[in-house]
Amino acid sequence: MEEQSIQMNLCSTRKEKPDSDQLEFGKIFTDHMFIMDYSDEKGWHDARITPYEPLRLDPSAMIFHYGQSVFEGLKAYLTSEGKVQLFRPEKNMQRLNRSNNRLCIPPIDEEFALQAIKQLVAVEKDWIPRAEGTSLYIRPFIISTEPYLGVAPSSHYQFIVILSPVGAYYKEGINPVKIAVENQYVRAVLGGTGEAKTGGNYASSLKAQEMVADQGFAQVLWLDGVEKKYIEEVGSMNVFFKINGEVVTPALNGSILEGVTRNSVIKLLKHWNVPIVERKISMEELAKANKDGTLEEAFGAGTAAVISPIGQLTWNDEDFVINHGKTGKIAKRLYDTLTGIQYGKESDPFDWIVEVEEVEQLVR
Amino acid sequence: MEEQSIQMNLCSTRKEKPDSDQLEFGKIFTDHMFIMDYSDEKGWHDARITPYEPLRLDPSAMIFHYGQSVFEGLKAYLTSEGKVQLFRPEKNMQRLNRSNNRLCIPPIDEEFALQAIKQLVAVEKDWIPRAEGTSLYIRPFIISTEPYLGVAPSSHYQFIVILSPVGAYYKEGINPVKIAVENQYVRAVLGGTGEAKTGGNYASSLKAQEMVADQGFAQVLWLDGVEKKYIEEVGSMNVFFKINGEVVTPALNGSILEGVTRNSVIKLLKHWNVPIVERKISMEELAKANKDGTLEEAFGAGTAAVISPIGQLTWNDEDFVINHGKTGKIAKRLYDTLTGIQYGKESDPFDWIVEVEEVEQLVR
Ligand SMILES: Cc1ncc(COP(=O)(O)O)c(C=O)c1O
Ligand SMILES: Cc1ncc(COP(=O)(O)O)c(C=O)c1O
Repeated sequence: MEEQSIQMNLCSTRKEKPDSDQLEFGKIFTDHMFIMDYSDEKGWHDARITPYEPLRLDPSAMIFHYGQSVFEGLKAYLTSEGKVQLFRPEKNMQRLNRSNNRLCIPPIDEEFALQAIKQLVAVEKDWIPRAEGTSLYIRPFIISTEPYLGVAPSSHYQFIVILSPVGAYYKEGINPVKIAVENQYVRAVLGGTGEAKTGGNYASSLKAQEMVADQGFAQVLWLDGVEKKYIEEVGSMNVFFKINGEVVTPALNGSILEGVTRNSVIKLLKHWNVPIVERKISMEELAKANKDGTLEEAFGAGTAAVISPIGQLTWNDEDFVINHGKTGKIAKRLYDTLTGIQYGKESDPFDWIVEVEEVEQLVR
Repeated sequence: MEEQSIQMNLCSTRKEKPDSDQLEFGKIFTDHMFIMDYSDEKGWHDARITPYEPLRLDPSAMIFHYGQSVFEGLKAYLTSEGKVQLFRPEKNMQRLNRSNNRLCIPPIDEEFALQAIKQLVAVEKDWIPRAEGTSLYIRPFIISTEPYLGVAPSSHYQFIVILSPVGAYYKEGINPVKIAVENQYVRAVLGGTGEAKTGGNYASSLKAQEMVADQGFAQVLWLDGVEKKYIEEVGSMNVFFKINGEVVTPALNGSILEGVTRNSVIKLLKHWNVPIVERKISMEELAKANKDGTLEEAFGAGTAAVISPIGQLTWNDEDFVINHGKTGKIAKRLYDTLTGIQYGKESDPFDWIVEVEEVEQLVR
């Protein structure tokens, strides 16, 4: 890939910024976006930061028909000292390229893409909300744009980054949720696209979610697609259990998405000398641990919530109430530490933070 | 759903029509398209036939992120008497609604959608190519358009129909292909979306196809996602084998797409008193039949090719040459009969043809 520069085309007027306390997730977008085009002839080219505006795509553009797309999700955090921080963004760029590979999308230059994200965030720095727990959500995504109805990899793509100021996930402090174990629908299977962050995985997950939402469940716990026996993920998070003093998370098996938060949780637990093991874990094992009182904690881990404690797990007609329905100690400590690092309140022993520096200089 | 009318907004100038002999698949589109909007408040509304032009969608439109989409594919055929014929289009509308259900997309009014397709085809009648084996491909599709980054069913959709004049699938007569049995990647699994015609299924299939294309294979044969033992489909077609005088096709099991062509093949074979059975069929059984000389024919069945004979099947390092690599008798008879019915050259014993009638009257 050649050296590229980013063309800047900034708006003359800016939109009004929303109130930091009123923010929801993913409904408001900033003034600008980053776009870069791909064609088989030119490779990735024409990188630019331009006003946020509708995309114009031919009705036959492949994205509308054959779902060839990938995306990422990360956040920019404002520290009390006014620094802008990203959390392990290089991991998102690596995963984007792994997703690209699975979906037959040409790889991006990870360093350049990260540079583009930094530059866009720098341009939109004033959009980063200040209230406790808020952040600027960053959504890089790639869509197939060739106007062609053949089932084949597209010859044209767009890599786009949009930004959305988002509210605190927990308005009233970290809070456990009720989860239903999903026995019918499957998120992913070995040989499928579970390891990739591609639209189809999320489209196919909606039905299960819809089925349990009425019954007061926040999300479903996904089992493996082959035997419907082993635990994979919870909603769109990775999942952890503390059983008899040891933390267990499903091993990466080809159908589980490798979360950045998951990786960070594992690293922190090791750092703290808390036993942590990645292995297969079945619902039967969990039921047994619940029965004999050794199921001590359960929680999801992902960028949006950071840590999401599970207070109750329902499997068929059995309810497992976990840690009396309260947030567990490990979950709380992980949440405090991870958010502490992200917002610059805690030291960063693993050099996870990437600062968006020298804002003025980047802009032009 | 309320009675709706279709607003007509026709172009004043028309594009030049391509040469009937030079047509490829899905690269050229006609002058107009049909669009209808959905919102949670209004339901499906604002049905219109308008000039074919780019769609304008917010970069956060859900289709770009979470792949919530469905589509259909059928054709309009011109008979030698100048009649315009559709082949079992009500089946496509029924399947579209089954796909909608799986993808949490609100159902369409099947009769109204079919009426819209007829009207659009009537408007674009002059685009139906005349050369042998050509047709006007019809692509209805639904995309999620809400500008929102949450993983949830969209509150807004567009149902769109576009038309593309397509060349003959077989330029030099029906012709067998080489197929590789896919042991690593999986198209669909029970509990997933294999029964639905949704973009994600096709995105996830690209990789396997790419891996074998170099080696001269036209497509892959998909095995079931659970045991990787049982045959499901071939490329994006259903598959049939003739073993020892009996035709066998994989039974619909929840992960196989229910093809209109598949259903028509089964009906015709029964009509002809050719033994046909829908059941599980394993690669091992097929290998055995190949070895003992009872594997007499193999072919795919789908709208694009109608019937696609399989001349060679490669499983691991074993090549099964089927019917000496030639088109089998059953495949040929099915192909001739189905295309004969579609182009109005043969009688239509099952009333499969729906004529696009009274063109003038429909237009206004
Ligand atoms: C299916 C799925 N699993 C896990 C995760 C957690 O990944 P991360 O920690 O990188 O946000 C996500 C969200 O990004 C996801 O969509
Ligand atoms: C996966 C898949 N299977 C089977 C078929 C055949 O279906 P039909 O005969 O309705 O075209 C298609 C194509 O439409 C398909 O995409």
